[in-house]
Amino acid sequence: MRLSRYFLPVLKETPAEAQIVSHRLMLRAGMIRQEAAGIYAWLPLGLRVLNKVEQIVREEMDRAGAVELLMPTLQLADLWRESGRYDAYGPEMLRILDRHERELLYGPTNEEMVTDIFRASVRSYKDLPKNLYHVQWKFRDEQRPRFGVMRGREFLMKDAYSFDIDEASARRSYNRMFVAYLNLFARMGLKAVPMRADTGPIGGDLSHEFIILADTGESQVFCHKDLVEMGAPGPDVDWDGDLQPLVDRRTALYAATEEMHDQARFEAEAPEDKRLSARGIEVGHIFYFGEKYSKPMKATVAGPDGTERPVHGGSYGVGVSRLLGAIIEASHDEGGIIWPDSVAPFGVGIISLKPGDAAVDAVCDQAYRALSAAGKEPLYDDTNERAGGKFATADLIGLPWQLVVGPKGVADGVVELKRRATGERQTLPLEAALKAVGA
Amino acid sequence: MRLSRYFLPVLKETPAEAQIVSHRLMLRAGMIRQEAAGIYAWLPLGLRVLNKVEQIVREEMDRAGAVELLMPTLQLADLWRESGRYDAYGPEMLRILDRHERELLYGPTNEEMVTDIFRASVRSYKDLPKNLYHVQWKFRDEQRPRFGVMRGREFLMKDAYSFDIDEASARRSYNRMFVAYLNLFARMGLKAVPMRADTGPIGGDLSHEFIILADTGESQVFCHKDLVEMGAPGPDVDWDGDLQPLVDRRTALYAATEEMHDQARFEAEAPEDKRLSARGIEVGHIFYFGEKYSKPMKATVAGPDGTERPVHGGSYGVGVSRLLGAIIEASHDEGGIIWPDSVAPFGVGIISLKPGDAAVDAVCDQAYRALSAAGKEPLYDDTNERAGGKFATADLIGLPWQLVVGPKGVADGVVELKRRATGERQTLPLEAALKAVGA
Repeated sequence: MRLSRYFLPVLKETPAEAQIVSHRLMLRAGMIRQEAAGIYAWLPLGLRVLNKVEQIVREEMDRAGAVELLMPTLQLADLWRESGRYDAYGPEMLRILDRHERELLYGPTNEEMVTDIFRASVRSYKDLPKNLYHVQWKFRDEQRPRFGVMRGREFLMKDAYSFDIDEASARRSYNRMFVAYLNLFARMGLKAVPMRADTGPIGGDLSHEFIILADTGESQVFCHKDLVEMGAPGPDVDWDGDLQPLVDRRTALYAATEEMHDQARFEAEAPEDKRLSARGIEVGHIFYFGEKYSKPMKATVAGPDGTERPVHGGSYGVGVSRLLGAIIEASHDEGGIIWPDSVAPFGVGIISLKPGDAAVDAVCDQAYRALSAAGKEPLYDDTNERAGGKFATADLIGLPWQLVVGPKGVADGVVELKRRATGERQTLPLEAALKAVGA
Repeated sequence: MRLSRYFLPVLKETPAEAQIVSHRLMLRAGMIRQEAAGIYAWLPLGLRVLNKVEQIVREEMDRAGAVELLMPTLQLADLWRESGRYDAYGPEMLRILDRHERELLYGPTNEEMVTDIFRASVRSYKDLPKNLYHVQWKFRDEQRPRFGVMRGREFLMKDAYSFDIDEASARRSYNRMFVAYLNLFARMGLKAVPMRADTGPIGGDLSHEFIILADTGESQVFCHKDLVEMGAPGPDVDWDGDLQPLVDRRTALYAATEEMHDQARFEAEAPEDKRLSARGIEVGHIFYFGEKYSKPMKATVAGPDGTERPVHGGSYGVGVSRLLGAIIEASHDEGGIIWPDSVAPFGVGIISLKPGDAAVDAVCDQAYRALSAAGKEPLYDDTNERAGGKFATADLIGLPWQLVVGPKGVADGVVELKRRATGERQTLPLEAALKAVGA
């Protein structure tokens, strides 16, 4: 993409309303723009990152055997009356009347609707297990939306729903999501720690939150330090095999959110130098809730003996839009955002120090073609902005690599290559620079 | 994808509520499920096609120089008061009060919001032209939603918005979209005819609808027959060059929707044997509306002489979800849907006639691996359904190629390859079959 043809409204000043660094940087980098309290437009740069985060989530869901569909944003109130949650959900649910006075709502989550879709067609235990997921905009009418996309009202969530014949099978589905979550957060450069969590309005008796440690986290969390660096199993997992050992390794060590925290147990289970108490950001939440929805909604299947029984369910959420805030909280410096390569909006910035200079243009064009062909998605700053402004913007928006092309270097047959994360700079021929960034 | 692990709730019976063939087939093929009047869940098969259609639209927008962002579904009523459309829009606008009694609405279109985003950051004619687009769910509270996704209430639309310094430049932006639309519909196997159209609630004085001819179309259209087979320019267009000749070639011949039709002109401009009067489905609509939004909303830029002037705008919609219905209306037979290769949910069906037979499984597995590796996205029917049922399903869901693997053929070293569109069958070795489908 040529910057002269792009739409990147970076802000020079720090917006006064932004209290945390990720919110400030997303506004300054021209990633988002607030359209109403807790409702944001995703400007082109923000959308590119959002799409990459979403795609990683999707790939890991698919790998774990979940099947993607897409439920609508609006739902019938009557469906929520079946589960009893319509009245229970409270003022966070955005309730709507259409022109015929039918009661609708903007879905805050989809347990009811997916259970309805399931019960309409699945009849036998032979069709189980099933895991259906979607990535769709949700709305929760937060009393005080804040922290940008971290606590917005209209937000993008991946929510998956598993259906199993019994608790043992449901536990295997739960474990698949547990492991998939470890992998997907790791792919975004995040160290997410699974912690025993309260089940809240979803219900059920088994639940883990996946927590990123960050000073600006909204809740206090407590865990064994070894969990933070334990890493993810990676993609070479036997998804049909027994994942319990992988899960046990992480659940054997103490980790709990504030609501579930038990200080005495913490002290008994973790030696003092391994006890970590920190602020955390919830980026995922998984639940096993058994028959909570299947029973009232009559989502039953015939078992091996022919009798009908309610299926055992679980649900699994990832805050896709929130993740952008979490990644920035975990990866930035005074200059701006430092995107991990896997989610960077553009792989390489090409900074022309003299657009219009034939020799400089030729080198930039060559780099642009080579990087595009290699799938490195270059952003080519061909504008007439001053060099200092260009450098500041490239740092602010966090491009992992920056290729600086100026007349002096071109005369000497070299360009400058900067790695955003380390600030390291090298002067080298263009071919070597392209090789260094993988093109 | 293995069908045993997929979620494909095909219906044996034809749903009574569906009046047109595309609606019937989308329900029967397990592509969609109605969740409320005019509100559909996209089941896995439907979502795959929706994503392909969306991606074609996106690629052609990008090629034509438009920049993608993503605006939220909900908007502030006050923004629409600035343009005067809040009161004018009528009962099709879904109006919402949040918990603090702020007036929101579910966006039916985005002229106001994108103009607001534009005016917040663009200051000079030097930053023009700009074309910003998004692909987002919209809501229009139709009095009588019907025909499935063809006239739904919650629907997916691509809407692009151009900003130019003057009318001449805006006309060039309009032409770029005109040509991009020709290309994107052609890529989906559709013959879309641009017709002079009424500008309706968007306003403005230049507008074309892109119309697919189909017996079930909702409106009567009139055009010169040569337009139907004129074809699209294709991707090798000089987007920065003069596109007027390409546009003129199509606008020189008579073509008008019912609202704009002038029978006397039609008869004067088209010889009798070239006059076509038919039913049409609107799949795209483009508008030039000049200063209609920029003036009341004060979206101005400094011109070359330093004076502030309102920008000239246009908007360009494609009904992404509706397109699935239009494609099916244009391409089906008694057996079901016939997907064009470019939007087929899976490229090849692998039909195992004897799952569990070691030799058959081995051939199917080999085909599955080869087709997956070649990006052909196979759907492998490894279920215990009877052969007749498998064939019917493969035809119903419209897979372009079907590879039938049975024990007798395997013993003879052959498989059967069927082309959905023609019904043509060949018996040939697996390698030759794979080659025939491009793997």
